[in-house]
Amino acid sequence: MWVYERKLQYPVKLKNTNPKLASVIISQLGGPDGELGAATRYLNQRFSMTDGRVIGILTDVGSEELGHAEMISAIIHQLTRNLTPDEIKAAGMDKYFVDHTLGTYPASASGVPFTAAYIGVKGDPVADLNEDLAAEQKARVTYDNILRLSDDPDVNDVIKFLRQREITHYQRFGEALRHVSDGLDKKNFYAFNPSYRCNK
Amino acid sequence: MWVYERKLQYPVKLKNTNPKLASVIISQLGGPDGELGAATRYLNQRFSMTDGRVIGILTDVGSEELGHAEMISAIIHQLTRNLTPDEIKAAGMDKYFVDHTLGTYPASASGVPFTAAYIGVKGDPVADLNEDLAAEQKARVTYDNILRLSDDPDVNDVIKFLRQREITHYQRFGEALRHVSDGLDKKNFYAFNPSYRCNK
Amino acid sequence: MWVYERKLQYPVKLKNTNPKLASVIISQLGGPDGELGAATRYLNQRFSMTDGRVIGILTDVGSEELGHAEMISAIIHQLTRNLTPDEIKAAGMDKYFVDHTLGTYPASASGVPFTAAYIGVKGDPVADLNEDLAAEQKARVTYDNILRLSDDPDVNDVIKFLRQREITHYQRFGEALRHVSDGLDKKNFYAFNPSYRCNK
Amino acid sequence: MWVYERKLQYPVKLKNTNPKLASVIISQLGGPDGELGAATRYLNQRFSMTDGRVIGILTDVGSEELGHAEMISAIIHQLTRNLTPDEIKAAGMDKYFVDHTLGTYPASASGVPFTAAYIGVKGDPVADLNEDLAAEQKARVTYDNILRLSDDPDVNDVIKFLRQREITHYQRFGEALRHVSDGLDKKNFYAFNPSYRCNK
Amino acid sequence: MWVYERKLQYPVKLKNTNPKLASVIISQLGGPDGELGAATRYLNQRFSMTDGRVIGILTDVGSEELGHAEMISAIIHQLTRNLTPDEIKAAGMDKYFVDHTLGTYPASASGVPFTAAYIGVKGDPVADLNEDLAAEQKARVTYDNILRLSDDPDVNDVIKFLRQREITHYQRFGEALRHVSDGLDKKNFYAFNPSYRCNK
Amino acid sequence: MWVYERKLQYPVKLKNTNPKLASVIISQLGGPDGELGAATRYLNQRFSMTDGRVIGILTDVGSEELGHAEMISAIIHQLTRNLTPDEIKAAGMDKYFVDHTLGTYPASASGVPFTAAYIGVKGDPVADLNEDLAAEQKARVTYDNILRLSDDPDVNDVIKFLRQREITHYQRFGEALRHVSDGLDKKNFYAFNPSYRCNK
Repeated sequence: MWVYERKLQYPVKLKNTNPKLASVIISQLGGPDGELGAATRYLNQRFSMTDGRVIGILTDVGSEELGHAEMISAIIHQLTRNLTPDEIKAAGMDKYFVDHTLGTYPASASGVPFTAAYIGVKGDPVADLNEDLAAEQKARVTYDNILRLSDDPDVNDVIKFLRQREITHYQRFGEALRHVSDGLDKKNFYAFNPSYRCNK
Repeated sequence: MWVYERKLQYPVKLKNTNPKLASVIISQLGGPDGELGAATRYLNQRFSMTDGRVIGILTDVGSEELGHAEMISAIIHQLTRNLTPDEIKAAGMDKYFVDHTLGTYPASASGVPFTAAYIGVKGDPVADLNEDLAAEQKARVTYDNILRLSDDPDVNDVIKFLRQREITHYQRFGEALRHVSDGLDKKNFYAFNPSYRCNK
Repeated sequence: MWVYERKLQYPVKLKNTNPKLASVIISQLGGPDGELGAATRYLNQRFSMTDGRVIGILTDVGSEELGHAEMISAIIHQLTRNLTPDEIKAAGMDKYFVDHTLGTYPASASGVPFTAAYIGVKGDPVADLNEDLAAEQKARVTYDNILRLSDDPDVNDVIKFLRQREITHYQRFGEALRHVSDGLDKKNFYAFNPSYRCNK
Repeated sequence: MWVYERKLQYPVKLKNTNPKLASVIISQLGGPDGELGAATRYLNQRFSMTDGRVIGILTDVGSEELGHAEMISAIIHQLTRNLTPDEIKAAGMDKYFVDHTLGTYPASASGVPFTAAYIGVKGDPVADLNEDLAAEQKARVTYDNILRLSDDPDVNDVIKFLRQREITHYQRFGEALRHVSDGLDKKNFYAFNPSYRCNK
Repeated sequence: MWVYERKLQYPVKLKNTNPKLASVIISQLGGPDGELGAATRYLNQRFSMTDGRVIGILTDVGSEELGHAEMISAIIHQLTRNLTPDEIKAAGMDKYFVDHTLGTYPASASGVPFTAAYIGVKGDPVADLNEDLAAEQKARVTYDNILRLSDDPDVNDVIKFLRQREITHYQRFGEALRHVSDGLDKKNFYAFNPSYRCNK
Repeated sequence: MWVYERKLQYPVKLKNTNPKLASVIISQLGGPDGELGAATRYLNQRFSMTDGRVIGILTDVGSEELGHAEMISAIIHQLTRNLTPDEIKAAGMDKYFVDHTLGTYPASASGVPFTAAYIGVKGDPVADLNEDLAAEQKARVTYDNILRLSDDPDVNDVIKFLRQREITHYQRFGEALRHVSDGLDKKNFYAFNPSYRCNK
């Protein structure tokens, strides 16, 4: 279970609104490579992992991603605070506003509601860890792209923190994959799946 | 942010496997009225709430639902532990197994991946609280239906706990809605939306 | 069954085109809180309702929502009548136009095709009526938001009518919920579901 | 707008329950070729049609499909009336029951919620009428398949009526397509789209 | 199986970038009436066809559509080559860029990922061929609409080629449908489905 | 473009039908880790790759996956050939049959239509190649699971071939990733994305 602490993992204090930027950053809340998907993926993959160390990594990283999703919602909220309808229309944010006013709804930048079709829980340690490595890279690229589109130093400061965390996660998952692989019989690498013990 | 505590909000210690039951209970992980949707809904609605007490309720309940989602994954995991392929086929769980082995993937009982289309974040306190009341009722019914389908006393014990929590949440959201309504100018109730301050 | 009457429930006579506004109003045809979802929800919920009065309300309101969906399609059609490609591009409506020309396709403002994942039919009177209250509130907010974004008095006149109908529906569903609750054994309120008579 | 008449277009009086059959027939409510999609398609296509006769056909057929959707819901309701949990489990209907009890939810037989991605509104008379011909054929096949799977004479009687209506619709749409084609300049058949008058 | 030839079916040599146009043309890659759906539809329908000539047509046309999908990806790639972030933002392409950089991702113009819900494989020759006729018409209209929105002669040259191929396909499928119909017992036309031999 | 060769990459000659097995194997046509997704992913990722060798690998593997999708459709077709309605019902295949008769429709085992939400095209070589490694592992696990569920030696022979190809692809993508990484400035590894040349 989780205990809520009333602080963000990294502070979000934005001086300016910017609905155009919010409309893009929202993909890291509800988009294909965003934090909601990441948290959901890791916190479920751990149930079919067998190695205790890897279960610990998935729990850690998954719990951290919950805090990242919170940060993204905070960014969106601050970037859209008190906007007038004219500001909303000028930014092309009217299509989002009509359905969500200034709430933070988990969708991609293109407006597609988050779907678990974006994530994999394969129940196989090697496949799941490869999935995790890919997820962290794709999130890193999304943050790269946000940095390419953003001029706001307050926003960029937070984004760079989040981006660096993805890189750290990638390294942790890389170690986890090597650790799991070492524990398998390499010749029969692909025939032996330690999370599924009852083979025919 | 959230700090992980290594215990379930309520213990899950199942003595028997039961893949048929797991295939139904999974809807409370990734189905239309499940815990993943509930947590996501509440933890995002709070950003556009204006009343501090209601923000607190949404944060509390949302954080608790994260722990409920964890419990559902634990139930599914224990109900499917070490199943043989024959047991999986006999239970009709082969359609899930082929894509997820014995992992816990957030989908509905009918196999549809979780989608945020199930949840609403309207950015309006009255609408969002009505949404929350409906969500808690629908979750309560899902637990009612699980109890109708389940013979397992270990499972039922956990389900009754989760069901009772939904009822408690319903009551908390009912108080929150009355509290928010009292703060509005009743005559202009529907014209005044305190979460959106910049009216034209 | 339904007999078609060749008139709109409330007249739609728009003097001006406005593709930007059409791109937003379309959410009340095929978006999460729109009329197509409302009609579908109510006209299906009535089959598992037990109280004759409530069945009548659901049939009435559902049939009226069919007429509202028709009005929204009429609004979109009139707002986009005879637009030139340049007008379409200038309004950002090219992304819709390429797939639907000037037809009225049931999608949200963000372009997502309508999905029944937006609506609930729980088969439980208390849950379904809570769902209906939430639906009417969310629709009311969508109309609020359209009014915030719209400058066209012809459009606003129709929108205000539709908005007022949502408020009236909310009141009818509130009475229906109280009526259903009165008919239940309050102590066993949540244990007794009159739409499901064959308990184990 | 539509006026509700309190009778089904064709009577549905089923003597026996049959949840397995209901689980299959539900595709004609919320599946890819079902009545909800048909009604939605025709009642929206008519806005971008230019020929008055074709608008009339689409309105007629669309209104009739609303009544067909109602009949399918009635069939599902009667086939699942008063089932016990054991009957529900034995029929494999538990996966539907957990989320909808004995309500009628618009999904396909495989449990996927209805989506407007199943239907086309192209805003072009020739394309839309071809779409309609295909839709009627696909619905006819679905009814063929229900008849192959069903032993119940009460059900089959209704299904044969619905099937025959699809064939009649197919013929009406065929006439409409010929009528529209005759009105086009055949040499420039594909260059001239009468529903879009403002060409560049 | 398919052997790759390192040339496009028709050359794509675009002199200018145009992200706005790319954002619209992408619907012919991953949109409701696009080439990916077409290829997938035809290459699967052929398995339940019984007439050898029709199987051949479906295989031919399906294989050609694979090459068309390739051409659309090439168009998008060339229209977005080396764009700067400012160009991307000015064109409103930032919502796509954040998730896909300058890759070619199969989605519609409105940003919805391709779904097989757009296509039909009914397993019935008459229904499937009607579906194919509709598909070709809808694709033709999409190309019409692209031509209405595009000023680029290099792009239009390729689009006109693709459009003409859709018309040719429409004619081939029309012949196939007549051929299949001739082979059926016309009186029992709808009762006899030659792709399903084991009737009850 | 592709030239069709009238032979499967590996022969599929099944002596027996088995609808239960077909209902599971179909996930390798239209499921989250299936061949349709694989082909679509690789054949689109190659447009934003910069290294010629990697473009060649993606084209090769993507073209091969087209042939694999064909083989899966062939397997499903042969496993369901000439089934009677009773056989279809006994196997629980009635839910698929009602909408697709004995056609091969690209969906997952649980009946969800294929969606491109399953695949990633990130437009970044490192991210895309990590995605590809994960995809091949997940496909390998799906084949593992099919082998666990299948008793049919004819089927298993084909599945083992397909599985081995996934392992080979995994190795090719591993080499490609090392090759791409070597070409990057390792210190600035994550700051330099060679597929996006116009950085701010």
